[in-house]
Parts: sequence; structure tokens; C-alpha cells
Amino acid sequence: MSHATVPQTFRAIDVIRKKRDGVELSRAEIEGLVNAYTKGEIPDYQASAWLMAVVLRGMTRPETAALTDAMLHSGEVLDLSSLPARKVDKHSTGGVGDKTSLVLAPLVAAAGVVVPMISGRGLGHTGGTLDKLEAIPGFNVNLSVSGFRHVLATCGCAMIGQTAEIAPADRKLYALRDVTGTVESPYLICASIMSKKLAEGIDALVLDVKTGSGAFMKKEKDAAFLAELMVETGERMGKRVVALITDMDQPLGNMIGNALEVVEVIEVLRGRGPEDLRELCLELAGWMLHVGGVSKTVPEGKQQSARLISSGKALEKFRQMIELQGGDPRVIDDVKRLPQAQHTMPVMSANAGYVSAMQCEQIGTACVILGGGRERKEDSVDPAVGIVLHKKVGDRVAAGEPLATIYYNAETRGLRARQLIEASYQIADSAHGTKPPLIHKIIGKSAENN
Amino acid sequence: MSHATVPQTFRAIDVIRKKRDGVELSRAEIEGLVNAYTKGEIPDYQASAWLMAVVLRGMTRPETAALTDAMLHSGEVLDLSSLPARKVDKHSTGGVGDKTSLVLAPLVAAAGVVVPMISGRGLGHTGGTLDKLEAIPGFNVNLSVSGFRHVLATCGCAMIGQTAEIAPADRKLYALRDVTGTVESPYLICASIMSKKLAEGIDALVLDVKTGSGAFMKKEKDAAFLAELMVETGERMGKRVVALITDMDQPLGNMIGNALEVVEVIEVLRGRGPEDLRELCLELAGWMLHVGGVSKTVPEGKQQSARLISSGKALEKFRQMIELQGGDPRVIDDVKRLPQAQHTMPVMSANAGYVSAMQCEQIGTACVILGGGRERKEDSVDPAVGIVLHKKVGDRVAAGEPLATIYYNAETRGLRARQLIEASYQIADSAHGTKPPLIHKIIGKSAENN
Repeated sequence: MSHATVPQTFRAIDVIRKKRDGVELSRAEIEGLVNAYTKGEIPDYQASAWLMAVVLRGMTRPETAALTDAMLHSGEVLDLSSLPARKVDKHSTGGVGDKTSLVLAPLVAAAGVVVPMISGRGLGHTGGTLDKLEAIPGFNVNLSVSGFRHVLATCGCAMIGQTAEIAPADRKLYALRDVTGTVESPYLICASIMSKKLAEGIDALVLDVKTGSGAFMKKEKDAAFLAELMVETGERMGKRVVALITDMDQPLGNMIGNALEVVEVIEVLRGRGPEDLRELCLELAGWMLHVGGVSKTVPEGKQQSARLISSGKALEKFRQMIELQGGDPRVIDDVKRLPQAQHTMPVMSANAGYVSAMQCEQIGTACVILGGGRERKEDSVDPAVGIVLHKKVGDRVAAGEPLATIYYNAETRGLRARQLIEASYQIADSAHGTKPPLIHKIIGKSAENN
Repeated sequence: MSHATVPQTFRAIDVIRKKRDGVELSRAEIEGLVNAYTKGEIPDYQASAWLMAVVLRGMTRPETAALTDAMLHSGEVLDLSSLPARKVDKHSTGGVGDKTSLVLAPLVAAAGVVVPMISGRGLGHTGGTLDKLEAIPGFNVNLSVSGFRHVLATCGCAMIGQTAEIAPADRKLYALRDVTGTVESPYLICASIMSKKLAEGIDALVLDVKTGSGAFMKKEKDAAFLAELMVETGERMGKRVVALITDMDQPLGNMIGNALEVVEVIEVLRGRGPEDLRELCLELAGWMLHVGGVSKTVPEGKQQSARLISSGKALEKFRQMIELQGGDPRVIDDVKRLPQAQHTMPVMSANAGYVSAMQCEQIGTACVILGGGRERKEDSVDPAVGIVLHKKVGDRVAAGEPLATIYYNAETRGLRARQLIEASYQIADSAHGTKPPLIHKIIGKSAENN
């Protein structure tokens, strides 16, 4: 039977079979599948079979780029060309206590780079930028595209949630992946992240790929693989992209929980705050200024960032953004205006010695138990609760000394969280070994010039 | 978070993830999934993700047995214990011109073994037993379970289609596999076939697994793997099972098409008919009598079968079954009562030489083009059309001599079929090589005693 003269119609089953058999898909096949699924022309059961085949067969780099591109163009791509400055964003794969976005947006904007940041909410043991911002009374993360553009034009940075117009294919596919065991694929993760970030209309992107016990990618090898994939995909699409593989073997900074993390952000923007958080923020800011063309080298970008902090300009930018997005800027000078937990309880160390390791994911889970995060997407979040760590890896601790303080509203939750935090600290007799390095590796063409 | 005291609820997502990661599933997990899916408690998109994970990760033998068992017990399992004789069936993985079931059911029943045969329809290039039976005017393949039981009790054999009560999980899963690229897994094929066959209430089963250009499994290695899987699964469930790997590199017998195949069945039951078809029927019958406990050895079973043919008892049994199932038994003595095609046309050989190979699948497709088979499940079938082969592999042919005759009702279809049949014959200068062996291999514990 020859059908040579009949125009080829797109058949999902053929694309599923090809991927199942390990054959590389063409750009047209991937586009066809993504577009038809987004329009509702392909049923969920075919999409999920294809997703599982992708999880188990993988994708080539051209396939990954084609998938990213198809998802990116499934919706609106912001055109920020009316803003003369370079547009640069940062994305983190998520961790415990990771509040760098709230520092970086105003800090980098203060240097004259536009930061159009579209972020997500927390799920599972990791926190989410939107939840942290919403701890600031009145702060509105649901701006329209024109509202977003207005804030960007006025202060150089704006932080919102994903809108319905941005990458609808990703939203539909992600919901399906979530219930079909097909989240865990670097190719699908890459396409999901990069399609949303590139829809922001940016020129360059700095990726913070976490690795360690509190990260999504526990092994550095897996984190590096995802990082390389995202960098190559972004570069194929004409963007400057660099990825930093950073440590998440213990929480970042000392504060975990939405309002508490805003407090720590303000500390860092005042030139204070914990060393690791401050250092990572400066490093990421240095890279953002470098790929944004504002500083020739990363060390130069770091120095400029440090000056913007000590001059108070970064903090002023944060105040301006809060005000423009409807938040109460007085929280900056009076953190008591942030939601406050009713009670605190200490977590004591049973033994004397040195903190040799922390089960980072368990600490994130403790925050979820307190009500500060979500087990399921539909859960609401208590902004006031959280954990303040007094000891981290390498620190000396006496028996009976507090390791952490829990900020809670419900006692049963507080007690369950305490149990988990106690168990997450590992105390050794001596301070053998060293602290984990903050930055494990830097990946990307841009990295080669530094 | 300890949930030790909370009863574990079944979560499809956990089973999908486990299979995705290559972890062996427990019997309870497989049962839970199959039962919940059959009841509609699990959506298609989760089932299809799991199916794709099974296709790409495979299954262990205990998993395959558990899946077969769960599908078997998703519906009614016939209890034929009121019939004192052993119950034995035969299953074929399908091919072109394979009409052995119509010979075997009456032949083996004539020897005193009960043959409760539940069969399928043709799809793609392979024919189906039900379509062949329905070429007999009046023949009813849609008996109720009690009607089936009545015919079995009366004449020892009955041939029907799958009922709604038999293995509903298979019906639902198969419909999903068909549209999600998850048909091609030996584990899923094994569970689908064995669950339906074991639901017939049989004691023993003979499997005819086809290999070659006209078979589903083109490679002998793949056919042998599926055969071993089905034999082991059946044995785990306490049945005597043997599998014959048989040749499908060319059509079986000389006639292809529903009414034409009934003609050839009557020929074989009269002790005539083509050598290959007759030989395979005797071999399969010999095995059915052996595993059914009627003959000590397979050669003895073959001899007994040959005697039942020459005595006319097998043909009389066929006549009786046709009558009991509402068909016109006069077709046996007057095959002109079967549906007749309006026209015939010959397929001539362009060259002189020897038939060195036949593209068996193309010949099956030619029959579909004539209207004798289905491209899609919902297509209807023309019982009258088909192909009679005059030359098969090894035969000498002169230039201009007919290779085959086409029986057709629509000329355009006839011409398209002729083109395909012409192209499917390969003519060589010399009769090098030998005819393919009819039986490649025999697999099963029962095989070791012969």
C-alpha cells in the first residue's frame, strides 16, 4: 500500500514508538507532539506513555533543545527590548534555606542590569521564592505582564509567579509528570526550566544547580549532567548561560521558613548575615553582572556587588521593589512587622563534639511539618514558622547547648519537628574532615573566560 | 514523619516509580494496580506510564506470573469440572494462512479430549479464527457461557469469541496498549494470552509460536523467549504447557482468505490438503493428545490423529460442531455453499527459476487489501476474497506460469493485491538452500519426556 501522495498526518503513536525504540525524534515530531498535547488533541494517556519512554530512553541534545523550544513557543515570550539594559536572571534547582533570589534581584538591578524574575512555590522539603515574598505583608506576586513590565522599567527588577501566558505546555506536561512518575528526567527538567526562563525575554542566565543531601540531585554527577544539559540548551538558543554546582549538604544560611528567610535576606543586604549565604550571593551576583556585560570579570562583578551592599543601594532597591509590588517596605527597618510565630523551643545537643553532617532534606521536612511548606500543591503555608540554626557542619557544640531554635504555632508540630531536627544532626568526637566547599564546579562557555 | 500505624493505602504512583527504577514489584502491588485499573480507580494516563515502564524495564518471572494471575482473576474462570475428560486448548500467535485451530478442535475432540477454544479476530496482516468460522453461513461464535458449555458437553469442542466475563482487565489494558505503543512486550503479551487461555478452565495448553517474515516475532530468538515465558508462566500455575516454535516465513498451506481457508480445513480433515498444513496439524494434535493424557507419546498421538482423519471421525466432529453452533453443515460436502468471490485473476511469474523466498507479511497484507482482513478493528471483513498459492518456497516455476490466483470482488483491490503478491515472490536461478523446517524448536517440561 503506497501512500506517497497522501499528505502525512501527525500520529502520536508513531512518535511514542520511535522514542520507545530509542530512535532520535525530529524537531517536527517533537513540536507536533507538544503543540497537539497543549491544544488537547492528544490524550493524557499517550503523553504519559511518551514521557515514560523519554525518562527511560533519554534524549539527544538536539531533541532536548527542540523540546525546550516547542514548550517555550507554546505561549507568550516576553519582549523586553524597550528596556535598554541587558536582561539577566538566575534560576536555582531548589534547596533548604535558599533565599538567594531575594538578595540577587535587587542587588543586580542596583548595578544596572534588568532582572525579570519569574519564580515558583515550594513543594516537598524545598522552599519557594513566591512563598518567601508573600511573607512580606501586601506583597503581590500575581502581576499582569504589563504590571511586571512597569515594575521592571521603574526599578530594574520584579519578582512574580508564572502567568497563564508563559509556557502553557510546561504547565500541562508538569501536572501530568507529577502523577505519572515522570518528573525525574534531566531532559524533561531541563526543558521545563529553560522554556520558562527563556520566555522571560532574557539575554543571559545564571543557573544554581544544587547538590547534596538537601538537593533534588543528591549526587554531584547528576547535578553536573543537568547543568551541562541546561547550559548547552541555552547556548543553542543564543543565550549566555553559566551554571554553578553549589552545595546543599546542609541548609544555606541559618534561617529556614518564609518570614525568617526574609529577615536573613535583609541582613545580607545590610552587609551582615551568615558567611555562606553572603558568599554565594556575591558569587552569583558576580556571574550575573559578568554575563550581563556590566563587569569584565566575575571577581570585578563580585567587588561591585559588595560595594552596592555596603553603600546601601541594594537594600534601597529591595525597598523600592517591595513598594512597587504592593508590599509594606517598613519591614526592612522593622522586621517585627513580618509574621511572627507564637512560640519558640530550642533543640538541644545530647552530646558534646563537632557537627560532622546534617541530614539537610530532613530539616526541610521539619519546616514543612511546622506548616512552613507544602506536602501537596494545594496546601496553604504558614509564613511565620521555621527554624533558626545555631550550629552547622564543623561547629563545636557542648552537651545541652542549643543546636537550633524552632519557631512554631502548634505544639504537636513543634515537637515532631524537634525530633526530626535532633535526628538530622550528626555529632562526632573530632572536627575531622573539612566543611563542604560552597561551590563545587562551574559549567559553561562563559566560565572558560574567567 | 512516621506512618507506621496508618494502614498503607495503594498508590499507583509508587508502583509506577518502582517499575521505572527497575525494582521488582510484589504480587500485591501488581494485583492492586490491575484491580484498581479494571475498576476505573486508576486513570488511563497512570496505567500507560506503567505499561511503558514495563515495556522498557521488563518483568521477572514472578512478576509475569503475578500479572497473568491478576488478569485471569479479574473476571470469570470457567469451571468445566463437570466434564470428565481432560480439557486442552491450543493457541497460535498468528500468521498468514494459519487455519490449524479449525482442524484441531474437532480432531482432538474426536480423540476424547475436550477443547474449549476461545479465539480472536484478524488484525493487520494476520487472519483470525472467528472470521474464518463466520465464513460458514449461520455459524455463531457469540455463544453465552452456558451455550458454550452445552456444545462442549455434547460434542467435545466448541469455538467462540471472548466474552465480557473473561479477563476484563486484559480487554481494558489491551485497548490502552494498542494506542500507547505498549503492545510490543513479551511480558505483556504473555500475560494477555495466558490469562485468557487459563480462564477457559483448561488442564493443558499447546502453544504454536510463529517465527519468520509473516509472524509477529520475526526473529526465532524473540519467538523462543516469548514461548519460554508463556510455558514457565503456565507451569507456575499448575498447567501442562508446551510450545512449538513453527515456521511463518511463508504462508501455511496454500489458501489465504476466510472461506478459502475453510475449504482447505475440510481438505485436511478429508486426509488431503497441502503437506505443510497437514503435517503441522498432526504434530499439534499429537502434542494436544499427549499433554491431555490420551496418548503416552507424541508420535502415538500423531498416529491416533491420522487414524481419526482417515476414518472420517474428525470430519464428522467438525460437522457436528458446525451444526451445534448454528452453521450450515452442508458446506462440508458442498463448499460452493461458502461465500464465493465474483472474479479471479492469476499472478504470473515474469521469470523462470525457483521460488527462493516469499515476503509472507506482504501476502497477508494483500488479503487485507482484497477486503479479507482488517486494517482497523472496526473494519468489516469480506469472507469470499483471498489468495490461492500455486507455488511456494523451493518450487520450480516457468516464465508466464501462474504463481497464485486472486479471488476478488473489486477490481482495483485485485490489481493492488496482484502487485503486492508479485513483489513478494523471490525467484532465483537455482534451488539452492532448503525449504525452511516446519518446526524450529519445542519448549517445555513436557517436551523433555519425548
